[in-house]
Amino acid sequence: MPERKPETTNSLRQRLHEIIFEADTPAGKLFDVALIFSILFSVIIVMLDSVASLQQRYGDLFFFLEWLFTILFTIEYFLRLSCIGRPLKYAGSFYGIVDLLSILPSYISLLLPAGKFLLVIRILRLLRVFRVLKLVQYVGESTFLQRALWASRRKIAVFLLSVFLLMIIFGSVMYIVEGPENGFSSIPRSIYWAIVTMSTVGYGDISPKTGLGQAIASLVMILGYGIIAIPTGIVTSELTFTKAVSTQACPECGGEGHDVEAKHCKFCGAVLNRE
Amino acid sequence: MPERKPETTNSLRQRLHEIIFEADTPAGKLFDVALIFSILFSVIIVMLDSVASLQQRYGDLFFFLEWLFTILFTIEYFLRLSCIGRPLKYAGSFYGIVDLLSILPSYISLLLPAGKFLLVIRILRLLRVFRVLKLVQYVGESTFLQRALWASRRKIAVFLLSVFLLMIIFGSVMYIVEGPENGFSSIPRSIYWAIVTMSTVGYGDISPKTGLGQAIASLVMILGYGIIAIPTGIVTSELTFTKAVSTQACPECGGEGHDVEAKHCKFCGAVLNRE
Amino acid sequence: MPERKPETTNSLRQRLHEIIFEADTPAGKLFDVALIFSILFSVIIVMLDSVASLQQRYGDLFFFLEWLFTILFTIEYFLRLSCIGRPLKYAGSFYGIVDLLSILPSYISLLLPAGKFLLVIRILRLLRVFRVLKLVQYVGESTFLQRALWASRRKIAVFLLSVFLLMIIFGSVMYIVEGPENGFSSIPRSIYWAIVTMSTVGYGDISPKTGLGQAIASLVMILGYGIIAIPTGIVTSELTFTKAVSTQACPECGGEGHDVEAKHCKFCGAVLNRE
Amino acid sequence: MPERKPETTNSLRQRLHEIIFEADTPAGKLFDVALIFSILFSVIIVMLDSVASLQQRYGDLFFFLEWLFTILFTIEYFLRLSCIGRPLKYAGSFYGIVDLLSILPSYISLLLPAGKFLLVIRILRLLRVFRVLKLVQYVGESTFLQRALWASRRKIAVFLLSVFLLMIIFGSVMYIVEGPENGFSSIPRSIYWAIVTMSTVGYGDISPKTGLGQAIASLVMILGYGIIAIPTGIVTSELTFTKAVSTQACPECGGEGHDVEAKHCKFCGAVLNRE
Repeated sequence: MPERKPETTNSLRQRLHEIIFEADTPAGKLFDVALIFSILFSVIIVMLDSVASLQQRYGDLFFFLEWLFTILFTIEYFLRLSCIGRPLKYAGSFYGIVDLLSILPSYISLLLPAGKFLLVIRILRLLRVFRVLKLVQYVGESTFLQRALWASRRKIAVFLLSVFLLMIIFGSVMYIVEGPENGFSSIPRSIYWAIVTMSTVGYGDISPKTGLGQAIASLVMILGYGIIAIPTGIVTSELTFTKAVSTQACPECGGEGHDVEAKHCKFCGAVLNRE
Repeated sequence: MPERKPETTNSLRQRLHEIIFEADTPAGKLFDVALIFSILFSVIIVMLDSVASLQQRYGDLFFFLEWLFTILFTIEYFLRLSCIGRPLKYAGSFYGIVDLLSILPSYISLLLPAGKFLLVIRILRLLRVFRVLKLVQYVGESTFLQRALWASRRKIAVFLLSVFLLMIIFGSVMYIVEGPENGFSSIPRSIYWAIVTMSTVGYGDISPKTGLGQAIASLVMILGYGIIAIPTGIVTSELTFTKAVSTQACPECGGEGHDVEAKHCKFCGAVLNRE
Repeated sequence: MPERKPETTNSLRQRLHEIIFEADTPAGKLFDVALIFSILFSVIIVMLDSVASLQQRYGDLFFFLEWLFTILFTIEYFLRLSCIGRPLKYAGSFYGIVDLLSILPSYISLLLPAGKFLLVIRILRLLRVFRVLKLVQYVGESTFLQRALWASRRKIAVFLLSVFLLMIIFGSVMYIVEGPENGFSSIPRSIYWAIVTMSTVGYGDISPKTGLGQAIASLVMILGYGIIAIPTGIVTSELTFTKAVSTQACPECGGEGHDVEAKHCKFCGAVLNRE
Repeated sequence: MPERKPETTNSLRQRLHEIIFEADTPAGKLFDVALIFSILFSVIIVMLDSVASLQQRYGDLFFFLEWLFTILFTIEYFLRLSCIGRPLKYAGSFYGIVDLLSILPSYISLLLPAGKFLLVIRILRLLRVFRVLKLVQYVGESTFLQRALWASRRKIAVFLLSVFLLMIIFGSVMYIVEGPENGFSSIPRSIYWAIVTMSTVGYGDISPKTGLGQAIASLVMILGYGIIAIPTGIVTSELTFTKAVSTQACPECGGEGHDVEAKHCKFCGAVLNRE
């Protein structure tokens, strides 16, 4: 997130920005580390609060701590808004939305008690902190993975569409073959069964009882078992390709994506600089 | 589907062909978009119709809508037949058969009520529409996947055959070891268990009870877990290979292994012949 | 199986050999096709015989057919022995043993009734027939897969050993944590659970009940889920490697395993012939 | 473990070291083979001891054998300490700790009976023995795998972190949607469900009952099914890369991408510097 440094002379605001958004100064690093622990601690509190036996005993403590962190994070959110050059751009960014979502559930829970458990969305804030802490290499790996996934998005979409069509058709066929008396009580539920089966999860909450149903289910399983080869193949070949390609651009035409061993640009034939 | 334009002067038929089979004109595009929504809507109706509680309440509405779409699709089918140059070739093509299958179940349901749920096969019509809408890139990716799968069809056949022989043998052994009293009531059912286990689905509707049975089951599981590496390996190496390498050799230096997109030899810079 | 043609003038024996072992003559082909159908038919009979309801009705017919095929296969086995040059070598070969095993269970069943279901081992005879029918390409693919698996046998052994050590340790830990009251009734049974879980089969016949047990189980699952990447990676890289390597041997030193693009032998530097 | 030979003239100690730590002499080999069998035998005893029916019958025998092996291994441990040059370094090494852990549980069991089952940790001692036996090739393969895993550790960490965030969020959402009445009794338990589902294990001890819950579960399954492609892709591309390519460039033509075993440049035939 390349923040444009505001050129105001408002030094307090600049210092706040340094502390909250950056991690170059000792104060900024301390802030980020404190933030990581606050996030983890507050998420653990929310989790423990959901355990009935603990809730009965420590319910008041949990309630107090949840609101404490919510208030702290709310203050932090407004500080972020106030010390950044373009508050609206921040508020609309992925991290701005996550920051907002991680305080909203507490306020929602005043109306809808169950809503407070959505506070676990706070865990997503960790992504930001990792980024701020300049764990450069990890971010690099993450970008690398994202690039490979992005490059194969169309193949994955084609794959998912095909699998989905298969699931709908197999689900419907099983609804006709097995019927409500064997747990396949409707087509949507039978499609749920097809997803459970094709993904090889196999809860066993619905399973075919008739011979024909078991035969079709066998086909679905073998398909699901074999089909997993396809996304794996797509991602692997993309990762291998992304890796094997040189980062060298052609000095003449700017073409990229040359093999590591290439001596000449494959687009214009110019001699490449060796890496 | 490169349809040969009929050279008759029947302009109405030509216009119909433009609208129904192509998506180049505004009318053609509108027709295709309307078709996509009709297909999706009619499939959703069929699904909801299978939910007992909804069927009781809205049964009549569902009945009416199902027949409405069936009649519309029937009219469309005959229009397709009438405006194409060689109707029989269309009727025998993959898409022609899908178009027919997506209206037949309604008529069958007059005799066999459960048959109407086969209407979900209509969902396959989406494939056609995607094709007509000239989502060229997606079709390209689909072709790419198909080519890789086709190239590895023999390896996959050998793999499936071996797995199937293993499943038959393990199923029979488990029938002898566990026997009907532990749920392995016949060899076909034991083979079903072997498929459930080897594909790592694992419903748990049949599971070994004796020590020896559990030992054999463990072997089957480890086999199934390891064997998945094989189709994945086949597809991946095929995808990597299909992606990476053009079959074009350099006319100057004879260098091989150029990218499909390469214009110049990466070794000597000479201009490559295009494939 | 390159059989050495016996140089006797016993033409009947030679003709028998042609018919039974080869598939070049019309008679030999007919014999092999008849054999395929006999094998499939007799295996299906054995399977149906294990279904209680069918056994009650058609038991006598099944009994008759099983013995019919057993006698036919017994005659065939002795014919094979009599018409081949070195009968002992055949009897000791993989296919010779399979041929014997596919008739023995019937005779065993005279003493041990359940033994007859081992007749399904006959299905393995199909392997021989495929081979005899000279489905050359399929055999080629099979050899290709076998070569890749063989090349990675040591890596797979290291992998399996590591996984097995993990399963023993996790199984024992779960036995201590969950104990007999939660279904983990002994260490062997807990190891069975660990195998069911790590292979992602997950029957659910044994599953952790305590919080700590579920936490350890989660670790086992994530391990099992991630570890599958390793055999897949091994086989894939082996398949890719086997594929990418040129079949060209060096004309000077005979070294093999050159890249498709290599111009010089990587061992001695001699110029390679282009493929 | 390159042990520095102590330069004392204590020949008994030197001989002991030869026997216990090395496998070059007949006595050393005999010791190692005896050790392998002792380890396997003692682990099997511990396993059988956990089976209630066997424990009742042979409890005393098991008790005697467990203590026998514990005493033998204790003696061996002290012999190892006494005959090595730097006992503390050994005691702190991985194998030293495993050696200690494989005798401790017996002594702990005097206070805490269930502790004795931890004796199965002895199985880890096999790792040492394999190493000592100089199964060089297997160790080489193991190192190869470790190197590939190590090289991809950051990508795997990024992957695991992302999956873990997803599991926490999906678990919490399911807790809200399904609630305690459908088995999702707390957030930690719902996260356990998310892990069971995403890893495609699918015990079925907790499974969604409501329509919305099943829809979300379907999403989790498809995600889990597809996501497995990522670690597989990472490891595969790493293994392929590690295998295929030397970092050595040709000193003559600068060509890269040579096999690790190559002696000559595959492009120009010049002699390569060995790595």
